[in-house]
Amino acid sequence: MGAVTSTFLAGVALVKKGIGRPFGSLSQLQTIRLGKRYEGRNPLIKDFIPLAELSDLVFGGWDALGRNLYETALQAGVLPENMLQHVRGELEGVLPWKAVFDRQYVRNLNGTFVKEIPNKMKQAQALIQDIERFKKEQGLKRLVILWCASTEIHLERSPVHESLGAFEKGLEENSPEIPPSMIYAYAALQTKTPYANGAPNLGAHIPALWELAEKNKVPIAGRDFKTGQTMMKTLVAPGLKMRMLGLHGWYSTNILGNLDGEVLADPLSFRAKEKSKISVLDTILEPKMYPELYGEYCHKVRIDYYPPRGDAKEGWDNIDLFGWLGLPMQIKINFLCRDSILAAPIVLDLALFLDLARRAGLSGIQEWLSFYFKSPMCRPDLEPEHDLFIQHLKLKNTLRLLMGEEVLDHSGLDYYEELPPGAGTAPPAQLLNKATPFQTS
Amino acid sequence: MGAVTSTFLAGVALVKKGIGRPFGSLSQLQTIRLGKRYEGRNPLIKDFIPLAELSDLVFGGWDALGRNLYETALQAGVLPENMLQHVRGELEGVLPWKAVFDRQYVRNLNGTFVKEIPNKMKQAQALIQDIERFKKEQGLKRLVILWCASTEIHLERSPVHESLGAFEKGLEENSPEIPPSMIYAYAALQTKTPYANGAPNLGAHIPALWELAEKNKVPIAGRDFKTGQTMMKTLVAPGLKMRMLGLHGWYSTNILGNLDGEVLADPLSFRAKEKSKISVLDTILEPKMYPELYGEYCHKVRIDYYPPRGDAKEGWDNIDLFGWLGLPMQIKINFLCRDSILAAPIVLDLALFLDLARRAGLSGIQEWLSFYFKSPMCRPDLEPEHDLFIQHLKLKNTLRLLMGEEVLDHSGLDYYEELPPGAGTAPPAQLLNKATPFQTS
Amino acid sequence: MGAVTSTFLAGVALVKKGIGRPFGSLSQLQTIRLGKRYEGRNPLIKDFIPLAELSDLVFGGWDALGRNLYETALQAGVLPENMLQHVRGELEGVLPWKAVFDRQYVRNLNGTFVKEIPNKMKQAQALIQDIERFKKEQGLKRLVILWCASTEIHLERSPVHESLGAFEKGLEENSPEIPPSMIYAYAALQTKTPYANGAPNLGAHIPALWELAEKNKVPIAGRDFKTGQTMMKTLVAPGLKMRMLGLHGWYSTNILGNLDGEVLADPLSFRAKEKSKISVLDTILEPKMYPELYGEYCHKVRIDYYPPRGDAKEGWDNIDLFGWLGLPMQIKINFLCRDSILAAPIVLDLALFLDLARRAGLSGIQEWLSFYFKSPMCRPDLEPEHDLFIQHLKLKNTLRLLMGEEVLDHSGLDYYEELPPGAGTAPPAQLLNKATPFQTS
Amino acid sequence: MGAVTSTFLAGVALVKKGIGRPFGSLSQLQTIRLGKRYEGRNPLIKDFIPLAELSDLVFGGWDALGRNLYETALQAGVLPENMLQHVRGELEGVLPWKAVFDRQYVRNLNGTFVKEIPNKMKQAQALIQDIERFKKEQGLKRLVILWCASTEIHLERSPVHESLGAFEKGLEENSPEIPPSMIYAYAALQTKTPYANGAPNLGAHIPALWELAEKNKVPIAGRDFKTGQTMMKTLVAPGLKMRMLGLHGWYSTNILGNLDGEVLADPLSFRAKEKSKISVLDTILEPKMYPELYGEYCHKVRIDYYPPRGDAKEGWDNIDLFGWLGLPMQIKINFLCRDSILAAPIVLDLALFLDLARRAGLSGIQEWLSFYFKSPMCRPDLEPEHDLFIQHLKLKNTLRLLMGEEVLDHSGLDYYEELPPGAGTAPPAQLLNKATPFQTS
Repeated sequence: MGAVTSTFLAGVALVKKGIGRPFGSLSQLQTIRLGKRYEGRNPLIKDFIPLAELSDLVFGGWDALGRNLYETALQAGVLPENMLQHVRGELEGVLPWKAVFDRQYVRNLNGTFVKEIPNKMKQAQALIQDIERFKKEQGLKRLVILWCASTEIHLERSPVHESLGAFEKGLEENSPEIPPSMIYAYAALQTKTPYANGAPNLGAHIPALWELAEKNKVPIAGRDFKTGQTMMKTLVAPGLKMRMLGLHGWYSTNILGNLDGEVLADPLSFRAKEKSKISVLDTILEPKMYPELYGEYCHKVRIDYYPPRGDAKEGWDNIDLFGWLGLPMQIKINFLCRDSILAAPIVLDLALFLDLARRAGLSGIQEWLSFYFKSPMCRPDLEPEHDLFIQHLKLKNTLRLLMGEEVLDHSGLDYYEELPPGAGTAPPAQLLNKATPFQTS
Repeated sequence: MGAVTSTFLAGVALVKKGIGRPFGSLSQLQTIRLGKRYEGRNPLIKDFIPLAELSDLVFGGWDALGRNLYETALQAGVLPENMLQHVRGELEGVLPWKAVFDRQYVRNLNGTFVKEIPNKMKQAQALIQDIERFKKEQGLKRLVILWCASTEIHLERSPVHESLGAFEKGLEENSPEIPPSMIYAYAALQTKTPYANGAPNLGAHIPALWELAEKNKVPIAGRDFKTGQTMMKTLVAPGLKMRMLGLHGWYSTNILGNLDGEVLADPLSFRAKEKSKISVLDTILEPKMYPELYGEYCHKVRIDYYPPRGDAKEGWDNIDLFGWLGLPMQIKINFLCRDSILAAPIVLDLALFLDLARRAGLSGIQEWLSFYFKSPMCRPDLEPEHDLFIQHLKLKNTLRLLMGEEVLDHSGLDYYEELPPGAGTAPPAQLLNKATPFQTS
Repeated sequence: MGAVTSTFLAGVALVKKGIGRPFGSLSQLQTIRLGKRYEGRNPLIKDFIPLAELSDLVFGGWDALGRNLYETALQAGVLPENMLQHVRGELEGVLPWKAVFDRQYVRNLNGTFVKEIPNKMKQAQALIQDIERFKKEQGLKRLVILWCASTEIHLERSPVHESLGAFEKGLEENSPEIPPSMIYAYAALQTKTPYANGAPNLGAHIPALWELAEKNKVPIAGRDFKTGQTMMKTLVAPGLKMRMLGLHGWYSTNILGNLDGEVLADPLSFRAKEKSKISVLDTILEPKMYPELYGEYCHKVRIDYYPPRGDAKEGWDNIDLFGWLGLPMQIKINFLCRDSILAAPIVLDLALFLDLARRAGLSGIQEWLSFYFKSPMCRPDLEPEHDLFIQHLKLKNTLRLLMGEEVLDHSGLDYYEELPPGAGTAPPAQLLNKATPFQTS
Repeated sequence: MGAVTSTFLAGVALVKKGIGRPFGSLSQLQTIRLGKRYEGRNPLIKDFIPLAELSDLVFGGWDALGRNLYETALQAGVLPENMLQHVRGELEGVLPWKAVFDRQYVRNLNGTFVKEIPNKMKQAQALIQDIERFKKEQGLKRLVILWCASTEIHLERSPVHESLGAFEKGLEENSPEIPPSMIYAYAALQTKTPYANGAPNLGAHIPALWELAEKNKVPIAGRDFKTGQTMMKTLVAPGLKMRMLGLHGWYSTNILGNLDGEVLADPLSFRAKEKSKISVLDTILEPKMYPELYGEYCHKVRIDYYPPRGDAKEGWDNIDLFGWLGLPMQIKINFLCRDSILAAPIVLDLALFLDLARRAGLSGIQEWLSFYFKSPMCRPDLEPEHDLFIQHLKLKNTLRLLMGEEVLDHSGLDYYEELPPGAGTAPPAQLLNKATPFQTS
């Protein structure tokens, strides 16, 4: 529970008091179009589909530093102090529980408020007890768990991750392949709590935990909240591809001065983040499908720890593109963003949508929540979908499907052509007939 | 036939010789996914739907300066001279016809190669003769006409535009409300030639010419090719809205040094361009639907004539956005673009798709070609669609419909849930059942 | 007394309380090197030369809106409210006097706290009375007057400005060529008060007032405080010239949302500002001396009123330069600056240095204060000096001269060569002897 | 002889043919003011002081790849091919000599045209023979040697560098502390040839070679040509300091795709470059003198190898500054520069000025040439001067001194005050008298 969590909690408390507004949150603010454009049916998502209310939410969590959330928020410096004063009581009331933490996996962070339990399976059981105690004490019906902690060092998938059996054996035997993030994910799934991973580390993204999620019918989502530079990248790259503009190179650098930046100054943690940020372009641009456009571009991503900025991250992107006959052009994007400000509404939406998913009987990987992630999880045999537009349509069409509404496909020829009654989105026969004489001459 | 046309023609000639590639053109390079993701059916658009071939194309047109296209291309400075050498013969062979031109409507341009016909109806007839002569001389089956000329001064719609009758009377009486662009559009539609307008002036965007298009069964499209800054705007603005990030302001400035820039240095021509560029944001952001996010933003657009750049336009955008609890962020975008390089493939695609539309029996406003325009035309009672992604999905789903393929909606829940056979895109019954117990408690 | 003045006053009060630091002020913070580099004599300017102390300063002034300075500071939004709280009393205690104001000269500002005196000479006398009353009431020995008000519309010099006699006749006869800024300047000089003009309007920059300044032995300085974009321009342009890099064009745009921006949205006020900003480059680059480098560049300056930014002005410059064999390069500078934050220390320095100048017996135009101005005043037959470095050297060498210290010229060959005793900065004889055999072969 | 040398040579040949102009070169294009401003004495530097003529220059050099200079220039891609055609003969005629090269010191470069001599002293003697043979074959009176080769890995100074004796012993014994750059410098100084080092490696910057330079009366200069980003830094940083604006941080990143970038992708070579680039700010800003302004800033410099750009390097700087009362501002500078285009005129000027220096009898470190270097050499007990303005004044005042002209100090009070005849730049007595009554009250 650091900068993101304290910004999220302070925000929810401010919104409940009517002092702040949850900008950035689809679940709270976005409308959803139903039916044809002229019908004017555009309810708020939260009026369309039954989500939990902010007033029903209660918060708890772990932290390796042990400060109350007011101290954490002050230290993070994301929200101005005079804003925090309004909810000081609410934040001071949230006291973290001792964390499962191991500096081997987050080398630039010194955890001091940590469970002194050497065995990983025992650590998992202690987390499960925390979860159940919290649920009982607070009289809660349902829970959701979100990983908002620091990026762990990069780990490759290994045999211990490949089945639930191997994984539980690994826990018993303190396998070094199992970092804390996986222990938390295991504890969540064992208690049938939906789980999402906001960092690039593997978390629940291993076959062992997919198996557990299916077994216990729990929805999972991840990985790595899509906040500043990557959000822009997943906007701009699909645009280049839509317009068939080629790419010579994309250079991205980031400066940030918060704890996240300090952790990522460790090359091993950076490696995990870099893989998450790099993968985006290839999946969007499909170099194999478009070798002459995207077969040879140079993609570099840098993150530099730069203390003057605190949480106010800044990204600079230089994009070398080419068009008609190969002539070169350049786009430069300078994003003065606020990491936690972009992440907080994602936390809220994921909590509410994962809770919805479980109630709707959905389980396992929730690809329709790809919208929120830099490295979206999907069925292992499919490619992840990185295009922000497609992710958004997928999210909203999923909500439409869940509520029995017709999905949108934006074809819309029927606004102009008389379609036979009941044709719906099926191919209109008369167009096909018109189409038959198609020849170039 | 200026910078855009000469770049387009030189490009087509180079592509036909195998020296250049038509980057930026969907019709030539883009694939289209058919069926489910795992089917791997991704033909090129041009292999999927029968478009005219580049080798079938023949070019002619009007120009108020009268130079051959090689001279025009040299003067425009878009393509390097050593590239133009390869197709010098082809370009020198294209000699423009005398233009219908009136300096009252394009005040910073001095037309010297102009039809000396005082009456506007007679001018239209002269254009019709040009068209018919060209068709006959070249032995052509079909034509398409594209307006790639300078931006005329801003004109409001007036009674003379409201019906075909009033319009033809206006032509007879030399109404000042009828600029050359409308005379060309009229001539195109009278000869049943599909017509698209690449500039922001009204062109065919008046009820009189919609009437004529419907009467003669001719497809029309427009207005204002979506090239640099506005292309980025229609990528980024939908992204902000998808993420429910609010907007305090958007400041856009452009510097360009070509003839287009010189024409737009006239405030009356700039007014037409400004309206076209300004309208984009409101339609995307829907301030009425989202007053607390988009109710009060400040949107400024500047274009400055800056000769050092020639055709290499540069845009700088500053975007003041806000997120969670109203905290501010900024995005700055610097686009070193090439106007004609971005416009040339649009010209090619529109020519081929409008020709396709006519063969498919489509007529009137082609909203599915909105993808290519800053101020897309649509049914008068609908709002234009500015979101580049929706425009792209609409274009491709229209092609799918024309060929009898299933449209895409990216819902994709069926990859994860077992759907009943034949459910198609209809709401899956079992999800609805699951959904019935939805309550927040 | 608007944004600049309230920021200046609040700052002085905070500095006196030890809460803030006067960053940006040479008079308070800068050292001055005396003698050779190795001597280590680098006193603070304020310890080197006897300047007035902050604790001796007392403030008064006019304002057309009539609010106390605390209200003005809150409204300006430059300093955070919690900073202002510390000096609320001091600021509330400064109540402006009724202004001489005429909306004809500042068309976008509605003055409501204005002297109801129709005759301009009578207005001047009323200002003189204000000055004398303030001096007497506060028991002051010396005064300085600084114009920190809005930019008036552009006026050309005309006969009424050419002599003191003509000017006083113009005052009597209410000449429209005499705007309020000149009436204030006249009142200052009549009371022997040193005067500086922080805006681009003419103010004291007319022969009539030079004459009065000489007659009354009063130092004057101006015009237009050099704050953000122009400060950068006077850094970068001399750099290009030093390196003999040529210039194709320089495009500058500014967005600002404060009252200054609103006033400059009036084209007539903008014209005055534009002239001030444009003149800078030509004087630095000397196109006549370097026609092949600077003979044909395009220089554009835009200012746009953009309310989202308040006082936090932003500038964007694009510079098209060329080097060896004419090959082109580009520099883009994006300055997120704070107008009043940059202006406040200038106000302080000018007040102290003008007071110093009068005590040192200097009078008339003070070219050595050019450092602080966009359009520095100088002897009419000389060109103004815009190069920030030369301005800075001139300022410090003037201080050295005033105190009898040797001036610096940074030649420094004597660190490496043995010079004859007492050679000082005179040409070292032995170098000349060495130089005699200079031939190319 | 790589990108810089071939650009330099092609340029000189083009200038001699009247096809190109030596923009960027002070020796060819800059004027020098003599006397007072109103005297109008502004000769070209080359008309003021007797420099060698371009027509007298002859070129030779070493290269580890062995291509002729036309091939090298084509490969470098700096100058357009149609420009190179005009001087193809001249460039093909310059064939490099086999280099002293050791991959241990430049790890990302594969030298193939290399002297097969194992002993370092013998390598030096081979270089000396090359020099003498060239001088004799071409009938030359004087030579200058410039290091324009790749950056070697970072080496610290060690005992072998501390005296000429130790150094020559090191050569004999193949000391690993002696990289090729020092062997070339030794060969230059032994043949009494003035030498300058354009790369950041130590080169002649060791006491052993200072000793040799003094002994043989040879002028030396270095290190690291000041081209793009650092040139801007030495413009902007002095400006901040002049204005007493504080600094929280300065982040600089560079992307470049030429051989230089490839070499610098080796962390050991980058370390040498980084030290050269980092040192600039501290020396300019003097944190010890101004601890509250510059005591704690964060300075980061990145260089990334990014092939899409070739020689067209791009820098992006973000500067976090603060002003009045500590309020923050930001400057971002984006420099699309051309490394070799900026370096070529430096090579020319250094060649001519070093030759001048030797004829004028100057020897050892030439601090007055600091203007051209990122890490300027100076007397070991002094701080190097990084401020571009001071460097420029120093250069020109040195030329004035050499020719017996009065140096400039820009004090200029005498334009305004009547000075006693012959006062020159000495402190004017009457000002001091005026100054005596200075008191604050």
